[in-house]
Amino acid sequence: MPEAASAPAARATIGDSEFDRDTSLTRRSPGVYDIDLSAGWTIMNAVNGGYLLAVLGRALADALPHPDPFTISAHYLTASRPGPAVVRTETVRTGRTLSTGQASLFQYDDRGNEVERIRVLASYGDLGALPADVRTSAQPPALPPMDQCFGPEDGPSPVDGGSAIADRLMLKLDPATLGWALGQPSGKGEMRAWFGLADGRDADPFSLLLAVDALPPTAFELGLKGWVPTVELTVHVRCRPAPGPVRVSITTRNLAGGFLEEDAEVWDSAGRLVAQSRQLARVRLG
Amino acid sequence: MPEAASAPAARATIGDSEFDRDTSLTRRSPGVYDIDLSAGWTIMNAVNGGYLLAVLGRALADALPHPDPFTISAHYLTASRPGPAVVRTETVRTGRTLSTGQASLFQYDDRGNEVERIRVLASYGDLGALPADVRTSAQPPALPPMDQCFGPEDGPSPVDGGSAIADRLMLKLDPATLGWALGQPSGKGEMRAWFGLADGRDADPFSLLLAVDALPPTAFELGLKGWVPTVELTVHVRCRPAPGPVRVSITTRNLAGGFLEEDAEVWDSAGRLVAQSRQLARVRLG
Repeated sequence: MPEAASAPAARATIGDSEFDRDTSLTRRSPGVYDIDLSAGWTIMNAVNGGYLLAVLGRALADALPHPDPFTISAHYLTASRPGPAVVRTETVRTGRTLSTGQASLFQYDDRGNEVERIRVLASYGDLGALPADVRTSAQPPALPPMDQCFGPEDGPSPVDGGSAIADRLMLKLDPATLGWALGQPSGKGEMRAWFGLADGRDADPFSLLLAVDALPPTAFELGLKGWVPTVELTVHVRCRPAPGPVRVSITTRNLAGGFLEEDAEVWDSAGRLVAQSRQLARVRLG
Repeated sequence: MPEAASAPAARATIGDSEFDRDTSLTRRSPGVYDIDLSAGWTIMNAVNGGYLLAVLGRALADALPHPDPFTISAHYLTASRPGPAVVRTETVRTGRTLSTGQASLFQYDDRGNEVERIRVLASYGDLGALPADVRTSAQPPALPPMDQCFGPEDGPSPVDGGSAIADRLMLKLDPATLGWALGQPSGKGEMRAWFGLADGRDADPFSLLLAVDALPPTAFELGLKGWVPTVELTVHVRCRPAPGPVRVSITTRNLAGGFLEEDAEVWDSAGRLVAQSRQLARVRLG
């Protein structure tokens, strides 16, 4: 990963990268798509939820008249596995500036029956058609320079060494949110990192769907261990990201009753808030 | 409204109140429900989006094996009008602790054709079955005592006088977020209020779906005028609310490209964060 990131000659581009190939679908019939879910985006053998959201997002971009996901909500039903899957989309409404669609991803059980993995509802538009007017009061996350942040290659491994996805991400975590990796969680529900794709492919609206769900869970900094499965994840893409790595900040304020929310913000190299997300996830309280 | 609020003898109860009657559905067939949308929950002749979400939430509570909406995402397609509507639900998945369902609300055009107004995707559970464990770092909003806050009856009217919904809500706005009503918006995207139902009916998970969308838009405090239609609204209900008025705090951080997010928190009288929501809405930039 560091090699690829530091070799501009080998730099991948939007449309010609591993992420693009692994999220590309084959249209079986209008609105129905086949895909082979890559084992390259798994964490401990589970297919990453952000990668899956990007797959569904691309299917809807093909099925709907508008190109960009403005707001996309996903409910995770059953765990996806690498391998064949089918995505079925439905155009719910088409308007002049926004269109709404639904998509479900199915895989097959041992008897060949379709099992629904995820269902999403989304409204799409054209980010390029939005006025430039920005009146934000949001501030970018306080994140040290990338060379003062740490990734899996720096050890101690902040992401499970057995996670294939780690090889495909350029993830540099803020030391202030790495206490858990040293056995000393801060107790604060915060996780911050520089994020990119390891092959240097720049961010676009679909890779932002991956970025919001690619950091270690904030639950780790709250002193919790183990899996934190997503129940529902909604992402708002607010702006087409500029080239270069993005900054991702994730915050959890309310851990209660065995559930927590993860609020993510993604900021691009031009200092713009390009995506906001919130997910509801389950935790095992110990 | 003040009369009802100050007359405990006439106090309505959960299950026996105007809100319950106006959100009650008649089952036409399994998963299909009829309802007459009340004109009592309109703002400038538009049916309030939170009231509509409560209607869809109650339909799913009947259709699914679990009683409480844990996370519900709604995409608003066309403007609903008071009058007859049909809600069609689909059970997507049923699990031991969570079940997922989908629902759409339809009305009829002049030719009697069904027109879809809203589509929701939601995961339900049982709030009563959650462990009591709470490790929140969230703080309740700083809100003055109710008698130092202002409602429509106090004037200058913070909610359009022609809004029928104003008569059904006990809404007391924080003076710090009322500058817009005096022609002096603060420029901060904040709106805070004490919220209840005018007839004294206590909060439950369904009235929380109304509470997150019942305050004046934060856009007013940002100096913007006019309608702020919701594109998508997702609500997480985290805890069954205790009796008494709740505190609602809404924040907008990113107004850009003609869209903004509204993040709402609802706190109950026991000081618990009972609901979190985020919506993406359109604004007319002037």
